[in-house]
Amino acid sequence: MLDAHLEQRLHATWETNADAWTNAVRAGRISSRRTTDAAILDLVIALAPQRVLDVGCGEGWLTRALGTRGIAAVGVDGSAALIQQAQAAGGATFHLLSYEAIIADPEQLHGSYDLIVCNFSLLGETLVPLLSALRTALRVDGQLVVQTVHPWSARGDSHYYRDGWRTEHFASFGEDDWQPMPWYFRTLSSWIASCRQARLQVERCIEPADPATDQTLSLIIVAHSA
Amino acid sequence: MLDAHLEQRLHATWETNADAWTNAVRAGRISSRRTTDAAILDLVIALAPQRVLDVGCGEGWLTRALGTRGIAAVGVDGSAALIQQAQAAGGATFHLLSYEAIIADPEQLHGSYDLIVCNFSLLGETLVPLLSALRTALRVDGQLVVQTVHPWSARGDSHYYRDGWRTEHFASFGEDDWQPMPWYFRTLSSWIASCRQARLQVERCIEPADPATDQTLSLIIVAHSA
Repeated sequence: MLDAHLEQRLHATWETNADAWTNAVRAGRISSRRTTDAAILDLVIALAPQRVLDVGCGEGWLTRALGTRGIAAVGVDGSAALIQQAQAAGGATFHLLSYEAIIADPEQLHGSYDLIVCNFSLLGETLVPLLSALRTALRVDGQLVVQTVHPWSARGDSHYYRDGWRTEHFASFGEDDWQPMPWYFRTLSSWIASCRQARLQVERCIEPADPATDQTLSLIIVAHSA
Repeated sequence: MLDAHLEQRLHATWETNADAWTNAVRAGRISSRRTTDAAILDLVIALAPQRVLDVGCGEGWLTRALGTRGIAAVGVDGSAALIQQAQAAGGATFHLLSYEAIIADPEQLHGSYDLIVCNFSLLGETLVPLLSALRTALRVDGQLVVQTVHPWSARGDSHYYRDGWRTEHFASFGEDDWQPMPWYFRTLSSWIASCRQARLQVERCIEPADPATDQTLSLIIVAHSA
């Protein structure tokens, strides 16, 4: 059963944490991001898309990084505060657009895109309707790329390996005043099943690892229309 | 670079360990197998195939279990000693057939099958040519089902999370005289990439877990012709 209360809190947390988040990202304070940022950027560039949609773009670093490489990139996010930060930094096109709005009317995305990327931005429980909506904004043969916390490393010792809501305390994200954020954990099986339910075919996985410890930091799923 | 020496030792080990293995399986001495045996059997039955090929059937428990449920099941294995055990126990059709022979001439499998299952039997480094050969023995819309040690739990603390040869010492497999067996570890990404290279599309993953500890015991991949 969908927990609408937690979905709402997830959304509200991004407004509250928008400045702290923007500072943390732009100061490079999230150490794992050095690896995972490079992984997603290198992958998208290697896939050589012309038009990219960055869903849940946040303060916009990835959209901007693609823009500087000559890729027509559009970023959308449901947080007004983050989109404000993105627009202020410029370098690409940014729109305020909630996931609910995308689900209700995917034509607002102005597809079709060669590639849609969701970089650590699929944090809610509602996934299949969003993935389905994004699929309709892909051109034929277009690809969806999702980077998420690695289900195995994110499992946590105190949790069962099952889908469910967890709490991010941003403990390692710097000294700003963070509001804890609910987020929805998914197993590997659940990610792949959700893609399939949204009629997306998983074609590849990448598991970026910390070069020093070899610890798997994230899971990247590449999929296309089934 | 393919390590032919280790591939050969892997093969030879099954001959040496055939009796100990047969005893361990039939006495139910491998505790994780209670969960993983039920998982693969339940899945194959749920997929409702009429003709099943069990590749690397070993002493034949799964082939037999399918046979008793009215499914026309054929088991093949590269170990003469294990096929002898399987044939002696009966209950299904068993053939001695090495993976090299399958790769060289897949028609020896006498397809087409509704489902081909590889239950903890893809232990060597040579994978894509074997998967490709098995694909040709599937009917259109047929499914390949692979159960393997879960890449994340099998990683081991002393190993990097990278493809490579490991050693199984059978420490928890009972007091028989076991010969250590080389086997080839693959990451999740590598499994999915190998399927794709063999023109098999991953449609689903299942991650059977120990009901007591919730520890993920295996990964089951369900794929079909791409």
